[in-house]
Amino acid sequence: VGVQRGDDRPIGVFDSGVGGLTVLRAVRERLPHEHAVYLGDTARVPYGSKSAEVVTRYSLRNAGFLLEQGIKLLVVACNTATAFALPELQHTLKIPVVGVVEPGAAAAAQRTQNGRVGVIGTAGTVSSGAYQRALARLAPQAQVTAQACPLFVPLAEEGWLTGEVPRRVAETYLAPLIQARVDTLVLGCTHYPLLKEVIADVMGPGAQLVDSAEATAEVVAQRLAELGAQGAPESQGAARYFVTDSAERFAEVASRFLGAPIPGAQHVDISSLDPRERSYG
Amino acid sequence: VGVQRGDDRPIGVFDSGVGGLTVLRAVRERLPHEHAVYLGDTARVPYGSKSAEVVTRYSLRNAGFLLEQGIKLLVVACNTATAFALPELQHTLKIPVVGVVEPGAAAAAQRTQNGRVGVIGTAGTVSSGAYQRALARLAPQAQVTAQACPLFVPLAEEGWLTGEVPRRVAETYLAPLIQARVDTLVLGCTHYPLLKEVIADVMGPGAQLVDSAEATAEVVAQRLAELGAQGAPESQGAARYFVTDSAERFAEVASRFLGAPIPGAQHVDISSLDPRERSYG
Repeated sequence: VGVQRGDDRPIGVFDSGVGGLTVLRAVRERLPHEHAVYLGDTARVPYGSKSAEVVTRYSLRNAGFLLEQGIKLLVVACNTATAFALPELQHTLKIPVVGVVEPGAAAAAQRTQNGRVGVIGTAGTVSSGAYQRALARLAPQAQVTAQACPLFVPLAEEGWLTGEVPRRVAETYLAPLIQARVDTLVLGCTHYPLLKEVIADVMGPGAQLVDSAEATAEVVAQRLAELGAQGAPESQGAARYFVTDSAERFAEVASRFLGAPIPGAQHVDISSLDPRERSYG
Repeated sequence: VGVQRGDDRPIGVFDSGVGGLTVLRAVRERLPHEHAVYLGDTARVPYGSKSAEVVTRYSLRNAGFLLEQGIKLLVVACNTATAFALPELQHTLKIPVVGVVEPGAAAAAQRTQNGRVGVIGTAGTVSSGAYQRALARLAPQAQVTAQACPLFVPLAEEGWLTGEVPRRVAETYLAPLIQARVDTLVLGCTHYPLLKEVIADVMGPGAQLVDSAEATAEVVAQRLAELGAQGAPESQGAARYFVTDSAERFAEVASRFLGAPIPGAQHVDISSLDPRERSYG
């Protein structure tokens, strides 16, 4: 019996900025043997208010950069990018691509008791209908109420996580979900876990929150197992961080999201990458 | 005596998004004979949280697009872009470039009675020190208090202009300015005039607000007169609008800023323009 070598290529993870670090954290906790490369497109953040066309263009570029790092699987750790660009990414790339919408929707479909599911996300994610479609397939009987919460991202990025302002903002956005008596609320944006406390407080004890990070990490583990592409069990997974704007600024905000300091992010300029003109994968 | 023909080339105006429309409006009111071309870089908005390097790169690209439209003068209708990129733009372009910082600072220097001047702006504008330097030169005796207000841009973009949330946010940000007893407050971001009411209310009657739009329009008029580059007095100025993301979304928000509907904005992709490699004129 030979030594099991494992596939030591890294998992690629991208987001518009820092939000996807909550997903990276879950992936690394679930798969401690895997290496990871994270790209935050901080020069173009946020994606949530931008159009499908622009978000797709940026997503392809991010994927192109990560493919150059030799990744074996891509995690789209941004709900807006998943909602708008997942089909195009899956079509263009030759490696598996995992988004955050389907795992979050599946978790909500499993957990709801009264069949009333709420989804909150960026304007782009909500208007794309991606969660609504996934839930219609996974839980056809469910009543879905979706609500865009555009101010949650700037609040999370600025670290206004508690107190009067986030509370009032949450009360305004969440009123239709309370009225719809949802018992399950999908945090359909990777920034929202930072505001979990105030969101839970406003929603009350009758509603459980679904953070798609863990569900996504589970799907990643499954895909790697199916492909036989797991890292060697004796290896200790390491992560590298890249951002398209200043690395210092990123490190500051990022530590709030990752729950630990970022050891040396690196700046990259990917503005000239156009993956549609190249053959990746 | 011949007929005065005038210079019918347009004035170029750019901003990261919709905020610069408040400047465009002031320019068009001051100079009704002039044509104008507006570019909102909505695919990369906001600039206020991004680095000097990235904002400069985007600003050069915006300028490159407007130069291709044959403009005779460029207005940088964004405080962050002015704060970070004005010297580079003035150095690279062969036409006059007018920013919004100097006119706003000059207006504040003229109006203050007690020599205590406040400046509010994005994180980028405030950290650049551009207003602080301009005021140190224009009003050497003045005590300047600068405060970044990062949540004001998303509030303005989302149309949360009155009520409890903007009020609480304004109270938090403006406390140091009230404490410093400023009698003059520069709205150092083209989005902030939309929040004028709540800002004025929180500051109280002892502080006057300076909106740099009108002061900037006056500087544009002076520069055109100096250059003898005014439009023909009998002409009726027209404006064209370009955005780097979806034109529909822009039209929605833009009407709030311009105070009138936008007649047909046009989408352009400028991501491949790199003006540092070209010689613009």
